[in-house]
Amino acid sequence: MTFLSHMCSLITEVDLRSGDETQLRLDNKTKPRRSLGRLEELACRIAAIRATPSPAPPQKAIVVMGGDHGVVEEGVSAYPQEVTRQMLLNFARGGAGINVLARHAGAKVVVVDMGVKEPLPPTPEIRAVRIGPGTRNFTRGPAMTREEATTAVEVGIQIAEDLARHGVTLLGVGDMGIGNTTPSSALASVFTGAPPEEVTGRGTGIDDTTYRRKIEVIRRGLEVNRPCADEPLDALAKVGGFEIAGLAGVVLGGAAHRIPIVADGFITGVAALTAVRLAPKAAGYVITSHRSVEAGHRLVLQALGTKPLLDLDLRLGEGTGAALAMGLIDASLRILHEMATFDSAGVSDTGA
Amino acid sequence: MTFLSHMCSLITEVDLRSGDETQLRLDNKTKPRRSLGRLEELACRIAAIRATPSPAPPQKAIVVMGGDHGVVEEGVSAYPQEVTRQMLLNFARGGAGINVLARHAGAKVVVVDMGVKEPLPPTPEIRAVRIGPGTRNFTRGPAMTREEATTAVEVGIQIAEDLARHGVTLLGVGDMGIGNTTPSSALASVFTGAPPEEVTGRGTGIDDTTYRRKIEVIRRGLEVNRPCADEPLDALAKVGGFEIAGLAGVVLGGAAHRIPIVADGFITGVAALTAVRLAPKAAGYVITSHRSVEAGHRLVLQALGTKPLLDLDLRLGEGTGAALAMGLIDASLRILHEMATFDSAGVSDTGA
Repeated sequence: MTFLSHMCSLITEVDLRSGDETQLRLDNKTKPRRSLGRLEELACRIAAIRATPSPAPPQKAIVVMGGDHGVVEEGVSAYPQEVTRQMLLNFARGGAGINVLARHAGAKVVVVDMGVKEPLPPTPEIRAVRIGPGTRNFTRGPAMTREEATTAVEVGIQIAEDLARHGVTLLGVGDMGIGNTTPSSALASVFTGAPPEEVTGRGTGIDDTTYRRKIEVIRRGLEVNRPCADEPLDALAKVGGFEIAGLAGVVLGGAAHRIPIVADGFITGVAALTAVRLAPKAAGYVITSHRSVEAGHRLVLQALGTKPLLDLDLRLGEGTGAALAMGLIDASLRILHEMATFDSAGVSDTGA
Repeated sequence: MTFLSHMCSLITEVDLRSGDETQLRLDNKTKPRRSLGRLEELACRIAAIRATPSPAPPQKAIVVMGGDHGVVEEGVSAYPQEVTRQMLLNFARGGAGINVLARHAGAKVVVVDMGVKEPLPPTPEIRAVRIGPGTRNFTRGPAMTREEATTAVEVGIQIAEDLARHGVTLLGVGDMGIGNTTPSSALASVFTGAPPEEVTGRGTGIDDTTYRRKIEVIRRGLEVNRPCADEPLDALAKVGGFEIAGLAGVVLGGAAHRIPIVADGFITGVAALTAVRLAPKAAGYVITSHRSVEAGHRLVLQALGTKPLLDLDLRLGEGTGAALAMGLIDASLRILHEMATFDSAGVSDTGA
């Protein structure tokens, strides 16, 4: 048994009994039953994942993985490829959107170079994993070998395990990779069964000509590689990306350690869906933070069976939506821990 | 000129030029243009309200006003009237939902007794204004006199002014009043022109029989009092409530001091709409935090011309949604202040 399949086998269903017990506790708080809506659901979900009716305030980390994509040579992005590397350096220096929003959420940012084209100067702020100098152009053959894909997923699992060992109890995932909506749309097409045009959007903001080319490029990638939904690792290798694979691993590693994983937008949604195809029970551990404006996200959310918490027209990636949602998760747990009960506050309860 | 009309005359349009300048600043940050969606809009909105392209991190306060309603003797609520008073005491002790979520947002809670039935024991945590021991039953005549309504609005204005003087730069509004969805629906019907059944919901959770009675009670209140949309103060007196009037005043006072006011759900939405009917330019100062499950909220939001930030099936009131939205406002301003620019981070900008 490989490390990957071993870890997948460790993932169990979330503990719904703990969630139900949390709801009973919330029903005794001084408010009409369920009147805090999705905030209450969220507290119960965290309880079910953590398998305790009273989960402690979380220690938060957001894993942001960067990778480059051979397919950008087909001209599918509005930004040049070197931006992936430049943005990883920006993450390391604390100046990017995710750094700001993670600070706001009280979450640590873990930056991982899964394989950008040019190596980065060694810096303690970036974990250099580097499966390769970017993936290969999937219109001409598989983006990765099966071994590369497996390694990338396993690295993600190990990073989640490492963070769990260091006390992290809430994980966010974020992505950075110029061109990475293209492999994400390809995988979304494989896993949802929708044709490329239904799961392809405008990424960072491409024009009509580039958009049509992008759909064509995805179609060609699927024709050349013939990925199959029933072989998720194979599909990931053929039309995925290093950071997408790594993030799928973070989801699996988090789930194996009963840690909730907050997905960000489209790319991390696809990574989460890949994880769920590898280990279906992981689905219960994924919390979707927001509804991205990226076209394919709707079907990915549907396939994950979740409704996102926020709908703020975000399309930045990096884990920014996950960071915002962590504020709601904190709020939901504070409600559970800090609100008075009808009894303790001397408030009449009619059970409404 | 009365104090109220004087204050209304001080309210000017928000400063759209400051908002535009803020957008230019955001466009230089290391992210595709507008990719933080509504978070960017929010920063620009705060800038326009504060009339500065770089608004400082806000000092936050949430004004929660409580009042009782004569109309509850018609049997329109799932909770007994004494709960209003009990909950104000809960607010004073810090055990209610709003206390928890305000702490989470870093906002001070200002509790105001606008007129609950039985006086509360004097406590520094509650400002006792007490226009009266609850309003009168509006199925038998006006809920308040014109003077009472004016005083209630003016008290709200003064509280906002007092908070502005003490450095508050972001206001939230919250309500507590058993039965107060009934006057809120009556006012929503007056101001939107929709029939009572379209703006009446189930409040804290009433059954079908009570729901039908509630609509009938509102219909009778409107027939007996004949409030007119063109006379907002008169309508407020006839079918409103002390806390609704006071909260309308907080909106007006905030707007006069160029302070953004974050509305909560249905009741504060109606209070904001009342304020906007009294001073149309106040509309630019109101930020709607969430879409309540309460039926009438949709039309109130439409009349206010705003789209709420959150949609979390909340229906608690107290300002809880406003507190959650304050976290997003903080985040939007941190993006403005803390994110690197393309230049400073050495990231290639294609203008996408």
